[in-house]
Amino acid sequence: MVKESKQSGGLEWRVNVPNENTSKVLVPESKPQIRVFNGLRGLIVVFVSRISKFLGKAWSLAVREPKKAIHGLKVGMALSIVSLFYYMRPLYNGVGGNAMWAVMTVVVVFEYTVGATLCKCVNRATGTLLAGALGLGIHWIANQSGEKFEPIILQVSVFLLAAAATFSRFIPTIKARFDYGALIFILTFSFVSVSGYRVDKLFELAHHRLSTIAIGTSLCIIITMIFCPVWAGNELHCLITNNMEKIAASLNGCVVEYFGISENVNANGEDSDKVLQGYKCVLNSKTAEEAMANFAGWEPAHGNFNFRHPWNEYLKVGALLRKCAYCIETLNVSTNSDTEAPNTLKKLFSKYCIRLSSSSSDVLKELAVIMNTMTKSIKIDLMVHEMNNAVQELQGALKSLSEQPIIGDSKHSTEEGDESSTIVPLMEIVPIVSMSTLLIEVASRIEKSVEAVNELANKAEFEEDSTKKSKQSQNQQNPKQPSQGNQEDTTMKTLQKV
Amino acid sequence: MVKESKQSGGLEWRVNVPNENTSKVLVPESKPQIRVFNGLRGLIVVFVSRISKFLGKAWSLAVREPKKAIHGLKVGMALSIVSLFYYMRPLYNGVGGNAMWAVMTVVVVFEYTVGATLCKCVNRATGTLLAGALGLGIHWIANQSGEKFEPIILQVSVFLLAAAATFSRFIPTIKARFDYGALIFILTFSFVSVSGYRVDKLFELAHHRLSTIAIGTSLCIIITMIFCPVWAGNELHCLITNNMEKIAASLNGCVVEYFGISENVNANGEDSDKVLQGYKCVLNSKTAEEAMANFAGWEPAHGNFNFRHPWNEYLKVGALLRKCAYCIETLNVSTNSDTEAPNTLKKLFSKYCIRLSSSSSDVLKELAVIMNTMTKSIKIDLMVHEMNNAVQELQGALKSLSEQPIIGDSKHSTEEGDESSTIVPLMEIVPIVSMSTLLIEVASRIEKSVEAVNELANKAEFEEDSTKKSKQSQNQQNPKQPSQGNQEDTTMKTLQKV
Repeated sequence: MVKESKQSGGLEWRVNVPNENTSKVLVPESKPQIRVFNGLRGLIVVFVSRISKFLGKAWSLAVREPKKAIHGLKVGMALSIVSLFYYMRPLYNGVGGNAMWAVMTVVVVFEYTVGATLCKCVNRATGTLLAGALGLGIHWIANQSGEKFEPIILQVSVFLLAAAATFSRFIPTIKARFDYGALIFILTFSFVSVSGYRVDKLFELAHHRLSTIAIGTSLCIIITMIFCPVWAGNELHCLITNNMEKIAASLNGCVVEYFGISENVNANGEDSDKVLQGYKCVLNSKTAEEAMANFAGWEPAHGNFNFRHPWNEYLKVGALLRKCAYCIETLNVSTNSDTEAPNTLKKLFSKYCIRLSSSSSDVLKELAVIMNTMTKSIKIDLMVHEMNNAVQELQGALKSLSEQPIIGDSKHSTEEGDESSTIVPLMEIVPIVSMSTLLIEVASRIEKSVEAVNELANKAEFEEDSTKKSKQSQNQQNPKQPSQGNQEDTTMKTLQKV
Repeated sequence: MVKESKQSGGLEWRVNVPNENTSKVLVPESKPQIRVFNGLRGLIVVFVSRISKFLGKAWSLAVREPKKAIHGLKVGMALSIVSLFYYMRPLYNGVGGNAMWAVMTVVVVFEYTVGATLCKCVNRATGTLLAGALGLGIHWIANQSGEKFEPIILQVSVFLLAAAATFSRFIPTIKARFDYGALIFILTFSFVSVSGYRVDKLFELAHHRLSTIAIGTSLCIIITMIFCPVWAGNELHCLITNNMEKIAASLNGCVVEYFGISENVNANGEDSDKVLQGYKCVLNSKTAEEAMANFAGWEPAHGNFNFRHPWNEYLKVGALLRKCAYCIETLNVSTNSDTEAPNTLKKLFSKYCIRLSSSSSDVLKELAVIMNTMTKSIKIDLMVHEMNNAVQELQGALKSLSEQPIIGDSKHSTEEGDESSTIVPLMEIVPIVSMSTLLIEVASRIEKSVEAVNELANKAEFEEDSTKKSKQSQNQQNPKQPSQGNQEDTTMKTLQKV
């Protein structure tokens, strides 16, 4: 029995010797073996703790986003199925050793979203076909020109085409859609033109490669679309919707926190901090949005999305939301500034600012509802109208600030309790003024977002609101009162125009 | 001679028949052949114009960034060299048909920057080794457990490991550094364990695969590092430096434009617009910066950068610069607002605002110089001091605004020409106030960037400024006057502390 106890910084080994009932204290030996052993043990402990930490992270990710774990299982399944080509004699005889290409295709092509998988499949197939045809052509030409020139022609063609295709991957239009295709083009062309020199059955090689790629890609497409499909379009839709909600929460939270009305925010401090920082995800979402919109374009109709769903409109909405987030970033800092506005002024403005921020975030939340339900809202115009009213009220408050004698020299600052006659130095109203202007700016940006969402709703043919629908259907049921129906419609339109 | 003329919307064919000197007008035939011909011609014209447009784009890209064109040539060269393995009998005999793997490695691994190439090479080698070893181990176990269980064990292991490795690619730490390695792990493991069932010479396969990959990766590394190497670290360094310059130009340009002093800006209108919009590149540079910093970590020492150059500090500087850009985004909009400040006020504030913006952008430009020359600057502290002075002056101006009777009711607004007695409504000073607060905020963010750059300069051991150096060397030359030297040093330190 060996016990280890840590005393006064040094290691001590205590051996309980049986049958003697005493324990001898071993003076720590600094022999190299022991040092090496301790070092190794330390390494193992660190390694194990790292591994367990890593596994913990992985587990929490899998719990948070089970889709990603399922994606792993899908890839495993696809690979198992493809490896059947090896295990089953009849299948193996059909495809032969080239079954390897099917395995490779599955590994390389299977992506998280359906759109990305389709994009890669199409790219792989097109690149292989083009390069295969070109390779065979050049191989034929090289073959005709004698044994001496053959390798030279092949070498030069590989050099030129590889250089051109590699360079083309830097051109934005190619990079966005055909980056992988260009890579596969280079790969296949090199294979065909180079191995053409050795392999006599070149056509057979090309044919096998194509058929195995076809097997791999079709397997990937089937599995990715049937088992828990993750649609890039749907992800983009959710991302934009979430961003709206995050900005709404951050905007409201930030203003409410500034005016110290903390009960409106989430009760849990940590949560409220998370809510306040929510807009930060939006700041850097451009790359993700663009990639998703690109992949979404490859996807067939699914769920509520048609084949020609206007994905580019999402990018516009996303860009406008990001602009709101920039404003909130500045707002968040100006509310944390050192210069505190006097309490009387804060009280006066809190009403207007909170009204504006809450009506702005209401608009954003309604936009999120529109996106979520994919239904046009008739409320939104009223809400925008309300937001604009709040903007005007805030502007009015700013104006009235100058009409009341509450601004003046800081030296004459008095606190008589009477709000209207308090003299406030200009420096102290600066935070309030800049906050107000930022809020007004955010409101104008949100209005632009509303327009962009409306545009999206029109192009994507979102359903009409059910309340409106039911009214319309009522009108259709009572065709004898067309004038009333028209009148109602006109009222609705006027409301929407407001 | 066939002429085609477009008249009144329809196509008309006119044939000049020789020897008759008359021309017959052919009535447009709407025969399907002609329509098909016209359609085809139209298609060809569109196709040719698109191709020429594309080539024009490619050409301008190549002229703008010749490095990218050179990268294409480098890939072509690497492929040509690798294909020599096929053409030369002795080389081919050594490696055999597996030379294909070398070609594939070159195509897949060769990236634009040295760091990205190294990262992929290491990932590919590690992934192949690990998966190869594991695959052989599992193959041995499966072999021992009888013919019946062999395919089952292999299938299950492929399924589990592929699922786990695919899922691991979603974990941020793996994704950032070993994404490609995980992919290669899956690929190799599937190959080894699946083809192990058929190919008897499994060890030979693994050995060949490793040796060809070694050939491919070493060739890539040599070519990418010797011929016009593009270092990710250097690119990151330049990106951050450029971003500083862009923000400096945008900040100054935006303020100067607002106050209508357009002669200071670039004379060319288009250019000045480009300068003003320069900050927009900075808004979305996060992804690029992170990728470059990651790749830069893989690179060996090069140029002025050591192996352990603090690339993460660049990310911090980049994040702070982005924060400046967010402010400028808001600033840019507030200067374009409808409410114009009255001229007298504008004139009064233009001095302070322009002084602050120009001193801020001077600080940024000096930071860019520090980065460019990789030399610590003693000027920077003075410049920050000056910027802070400008901030205080602007704050003073805001304060004095309330001390002078220039703010009051808009109804009493008079323009008597006398600056000090003009009464300005509060609403009209709002743009100026919010601009001033934003400028002050930008200045504080720039100060933080200065701190981050100083931290970077310390960690990366930038050289001391030559002026300081020469003074120090003077002190060393005159060791008899240590007190004077110390005094000077103290003055310097005090200056730096200011």
